[in-house]
Amino acid sequence: MQMSTAVFDEYIIAPDPEREGLTRVVQAMDASGEPRELRVVEERPLTIYLNRREIVTAMTIGDYPEYLALGFLSNQGMLSATDTVTRVDYDEEVATVVVRTAEETDHEDKLARKTRTSGCAVGTVFGDMMAGLEGLTLPATPLREEWIYALSEKINRTPSLYLAAGAIHGTVLCEGDRPLVYMEDVGRHNAVDKIAGWMRSEGVSGEDKILYTTGRLTSEMVIKTALMGIPILISRSGFTAWGVEIAQEVGLTLIGRAKGKRYECLSGAERLQR
Amino acid sequence: MQMSTAVFDEYIIAPDPEREGLTRVVQAMDASGEPRELRVVEERPLTIYLNRREIVTAMTIGDYPEYLALGFLSNQGMLSATDTVTRVDYDEEVATVVVRTAEETDHEDKLARKTRTSGCAVGTVFGDMMAGLEGLTLPATPLREEWIYALSEKINRTPSLYLAAGAIHGTVLCEGDRPLVYMEDVGRHNAVDKIAGWMRSEGVSGEDKILYTTGRLTSEMVIKTALMGIPILISRSGFTAWGVEIAQEVGLTLIGRAKGKRYECLSGAERLQR
Repeated sequence: MQMSTAVFDEYIIAPDPEREGLTRVVQAMDASGEPRELRVVEERPLTIYLNRREIVTAMTIGDYPEYLALGFLSNQGMLSATDTVTRVDYDEEVATVVVRTAEETDHEDKLARKTRTSGCAVGTVFGDMMAGLEGLTLPATPLREEWIYALSEKINRTPSLYLAAGAIHGTVLCEGDRPLVYMEDVGRHNAVDKIAGWMRSEGVSGEDKILYTTGRLTSEMVIKTALMGIPILISRSGFTAWGVEIAQEVGLTLIGRAKGKRYECLSGAERLQR
Repeated sequence: MQMSTAVFDEYIIAPDPEREGLTRVVQAMDASGEPRELRVVEERPLTIYLNRREIVTAMTIGDYPEYLALGFLSNQGMLSATDTVTRVDYDEEVATVVVRTAEETDHEDKLARKTRTSGCAVGTVFGDMMAGLEGLTLPATPLREEWIYALSEKINRTPSLYLAAGAIHGTVLCEGDRPLVYMEDVGRHNAVDKIAGWMRSEGVSGEDKILYTTGRLTSEMVIKTALMGIPILISRSGFTAWGVEIAQEVGLTLIGRAKGKRYECLSGAERLQR
């Protein structure tokens, strides 16, 4: 990299593409018929438990499993803001994370009731996420246009697994034009869940923050951002109609296709200062 | 389009980007501050039932719901090759598809047993998919290098929702250098499941086929392709370490980063004729 390291000093957590276990070298053959070595990202199962109950198995690169578990459970409405988390235990050997709360949450009962009729929580979990949006009001945090450009440039130039190996999504928690926490994962939802887990662990509020993602702005990304209390979501990728509709309904500022000095504002233009 | 329509005559099913209900126009504001209209893809929930049991709610653009349901259940191992499907009923108003079998499958019992201990089928379903790979042998179908180039070019030039609106993945079932069935969806797994559903409905075998996807080659994409009996998987995107590993284990030819006259062969080079 030709740039000063000053930019990267802004991060509280930056990607660590050199970290062992996140990538692997595989043998490939290219169109010239020559053998070559390629660096690729890992992908491994991680099973998340809430107290005694197995909730889900996520496919992940494997870093920050505790944040992933905490953020996933929070974003799915299985762990509320008032639940006291007493311990988070990660067992690398059996690839599990167990999140323990002071009192068993009523989610266990709720889930048991639902699975009796539905067989799988996936569908109903989505309903729980939507329910969490009712009555939600996002703050009038301003967004300066130059922050969009500055964040895009800084994030794109930050050494990352994406630059080193590709096939991975990134999500960055930002404040003004400063990127704070940059998480990556094979699924874009894992990357945003890790951010949510970090925020919960550190007691960080979303009200003055901006979330940047490399992935598409689907309904689920918009819902998660709103549930995290973050009023602004920026992506360099595209968006779906329902993502836009939900952003408009909850009053979230949605910026898509942010590249160079271009972007599309799809919702919440009142926060944008041009 | 300046090209002859001859290429598109090769398709049995091609994308229909003009079809009503798949896209919507949203109002946006770009960096110049000017309002503009953008065409974006729809994304809506579809709940899949197997007989009386609710299995999952998928987020989909909404076309070919019957193929999506059939393919999803087949690829998840919930519907075996020997199960007789008597009816597939799609109800647009309540956004459900019900797949009915001649005899209740043992999957219902299996699922009930599992949910008692696990709370959600997501994790265990993945285990079922892996179990389906045991003893699988993929045929020695050849892959000519020029087919990779021809398919990439034809598929990239085919009018699609991707070209019209972006933010969508495509999967194409091919034979030799001919693209046969091109499905698109907001999730790349839905696109491949729709192909699987079409194959099952039409009684089409995967043994002499090639699957092309615009999305990344993750473990789940590789597993689904192998379960469909297709020996060759090509993508213009990257790949994960586990995707490569599973391809090598099951003897599937895996081609990544196929663009122009370039590609990387990551597994199964013995099928490649250069």
